[in-house]
Amino acid sequence: MQFCSLDDIRAFCRDLPDGSEHAARAVVRRQQALTKPPQSLGRLEDLVAWLARWQGRECPQLERVTIAVFAGNHGVAARNVSAYPQAVTQQMVANFANGGAAINQIAGLAGAELRVVPIELDRPTRDFTAAPAMDTDEFLSAVDVGYRTAPPNCDLLAVGEMGIANTTTAAVLCAALLGGDAARWVGRGTGVDDAGLARKRAAIEAALGRHRAILGDPLAVAAALGGRELAAIAGAILAARRNGIPVLLDGFVATAAIVPLTRLNAGITDHCRAGHLSAESGHRLLLQELGLDPLLDLGMRLGEASGAAVAILLLRAALACHTGMATFTEAGVADVDK
Amino acid sequence: MQFCSLDDIRAFCRDLPDGSEHAARAVVRRQQALTKPPQSLGRLEDLVAWLARWQGRECPQLERVTIAVFAGNHGVAARNVSAYPQAVTQQMVANFANGGAAINQIAGLAGAELRVVPIELDRPTRDFTAAPAMDTDEFLSAVDVGYRTAPPNCDLLAVGEMGIANTTTAAVLCAALLGGDAARWVGRGTGVDDAGLARKRAAIEAALGRHRAILGDPLAVAAALGGRELAAIAGAILAARRNGIPVLLDGFVATAAIVPLTRLNAGITDHCRAGHLSAESGHRLLLQELGLDPLLDLGMRLGEASGAAVAILLLRAALACHTGMATFTEAGVADVDK
Repeated sequence: MQFCSLDDIRAFCRDLPDGSEHAARAVVRRQQALTKPPQSLGRLEDLVAWLARWQGRECPQLERVTIAVFAGNHGVAARNVSAYPQAVTQQMVANFANGGAAINQIAGLAGAELRVVPIELDRPTRDFTAAPAMDTDEFLSAVDVGYRTAPPNCDLLAVGEMGIANTTTAAVLCAALLGGDAARWVGRGTGVDDAGLARKRAAIEAALGRHRAILGDPLAVAAALGGRELAAIAGAILAARRNGIPVLLDGFVATAAIVPLTRLNAGITDHCRAGHLSAESGHRLLLQELGLDPLLDLGMRLGEASGAAVAILLLRAALACHTGMATFTEAGVADVDK
Repeated sequence: MQFCSLDDIRAFCRDLPDGSEHAARAVVRRQQALTKPPQSLGRLEDLVAWLARWQGRECPQLERVTIAVFAGNHGVAARNVSAYPQAVTQQMVANFANGGAAINQIAGLAGAELRVVPIELDRPTRDFTAAPAMDTDEFLSAVDVGYRTAPPNCDLLAVGEMGIANTTTAAVLCAALLGGDAARWVGRGTGVDDAGLARKRAAIEAALGRHRAILGDPLAVAAALGGRELAAIAGAILAARRNGIPVLLDGFVATAAIVPLTRLNAGITDHCRAGHLSAESGHRLLLQELGLDPLLDLGMRLGEASGAAVAILLLRAALACHTGMATFTEAGVADVDK
C-alpha cells in the first residue's frame, strides 16, 4: 500500500509535488509565435500550458490517455434514494466490459484506454445513516485500488464512477465538509421524483446528525460518509500528483470525491481540471467552492466519466493546434506590431 | 447562379424547407432505449435529433463533414480598424493551403474536409463609410460562391471566415439590422487597443449615417455594409438548407453573416447551431438575439471556423454514443420503473 494510514495521506497532502513552471513558460513562448492573434485560442492555450506544467514537458503529449471508472455499491441505497435498483451497478460494469455504454463510445473516439474497476460490489458500504460506511482499513484499501489503477506513465487521466445511490454519498460529503444543509447539495441523480428527493435529503440529514463528532476530520468523513469508488478516485488523484499526470474530473460524484483532500490542502486541485459542468444540481456550487471552471456545459449527468471523456477531445484539439501550427516566421505572415 | 436577384433570395426565404420530424422522433425513441437514465447525455442527445431532422435520416451520419472558410478583404480596413495589415488575409489563406493554421489542425482531428475559398482578395469591398461596400451584382456573386462551395451531399457543414477588418463589418451589420449603437456591437477583434476601438466605433457610426435610407432592407444592407466572405457564408447556409445539411456556425463574424437572412425569416437558423461563444464582445448578444445557444464557451476568438470545428468533435461524441450504445434489453440492464 502507498498509504498505510490516514496520517500517510495527511503527510503527502502537506507537501504536494509542484508542476514545472519552466515547461509551462515554454508553451506560452511558443504560443506567442504561432500564426494567430495573442490568446485567441482562449482556454485551449491555457490547457496546453497546464498539460506541460504537470507532465513536466516543454512539449506535452497525449500518447497514452487513461480513463478510470471506479464502481462501488452503497448501503444507503436501502433508503430508496435512486431511481434504479442496486443490481444496476454490476449490470453496468458488465455493459462497460461488453462495450455497450456511453463511455465505451466516447473513449474510443477520444483514443483513450478505458479501465473499469469494480470494487467489492458484493459488499456494499454500510448505510451511513446507521453506521460508518467504511472503517479506516476499508477506506485505505479502496484508496489503494485507485492509486494502483492510475498508470504511472500515462499522459492524462480522466476519472469517473458508477454506483447506484452515489449522488447521495457525494452530497453528504459536500454537506459535511463544505457546509450548508442537505438541500444545498442534493439533486435528482439518475432522475428521482420529489418523494425520492425528500428521501435523499432525509438520509443526508440523518447521516450528518449521526456522525456529528467526526465532521472536523476530512479523512474520517471520507471513510464514514463516503464510498469505495469515491475513495478510489481520491487515491487515483494522489497517484497522478505523485507521477506528474494531469487529471480531468468528471461530474458531481467524481468532484465530491476529492473534497476531503481539498480540506487537507486546497492545492490538490492544481493538477486537475473539471471536464464539464454536470446537470446534477450540486455540481455548479461544488465547482465554485473548489475554484474549478468546467470546460464543457452540455447538460450531461450520466457519470461513468462521460463528461471528462468528451473533454479529452478538447485537450486533443488544443494540443494539435500547439504542435501543428506554423509560426509567423515559418508561414511568412505579418505579425502584429509589438 | 442559384439566386439571380435579391428577390430570388427573398422568395426562397419565404418558404424555407422543413426538416424531418419523423427522423427526429426516431432518434428520441432509440435514445429512450439506450443504457442511460433518460436525457442524461443532455445536449448530446438533442444534437443527434437535430442531425437526424435536417439530414432527413433516422440514423444520422457524419461520414462527410466539410469546413468552409471564406476569405475577403474590406475597404474599411483603410480606417485602421485592425491590429494587422490587410495583406494578412492573403498570407493566412496561404497558411491554410500549407496546413499551418489552427483550422488545419482541428479539421484534421475532426475528420473534416477543409475548403478555403478566397474571394477576390485583390479587390476589397469599398469602404462603407464612404460608399456601398458592394453593388447588387457583386453581392449576388459572393453569395453564389458560398452556395456552390457547400457540397450538396455532405452530412455537416461548418462555416467560418478570414478577413482583416471584418469584425467591423460584422458589427455594422448587427447595428444596422438589430439596432443599438455602435458600442453595443463593437469589440477588440484581433486585439485593437482603445484608440483602435474608437476608430471602429466611428467607422460604424459613419456607415449607419451614410446608409440610413436602406437600413429597412436586409439584403440591401448585406450588400452595402457587408463583405464578400459574409455574403458567401449566407449563400452556403441557403445551400445547406436546400440540400438537407445541418450547419455549425463559427463566431461573431460568421453569425453576423446570417443576420440579413434572419430578418427575412427567423426560421433560417433552425438548421444551424452555434459552435461556440466567441470572446469577441458582440457575440453573446448576437446569439441571444438569434435564439442560438452555443455549444462551447472556451474564450476562443480566432475565426477561421476554429470554434465550429472544435464543436464537430462534440457531434462525433454524440453520434458515437447514439450509434454504438447497447439498449437496456441488449445489455440485460434493469431499466427504471416506468
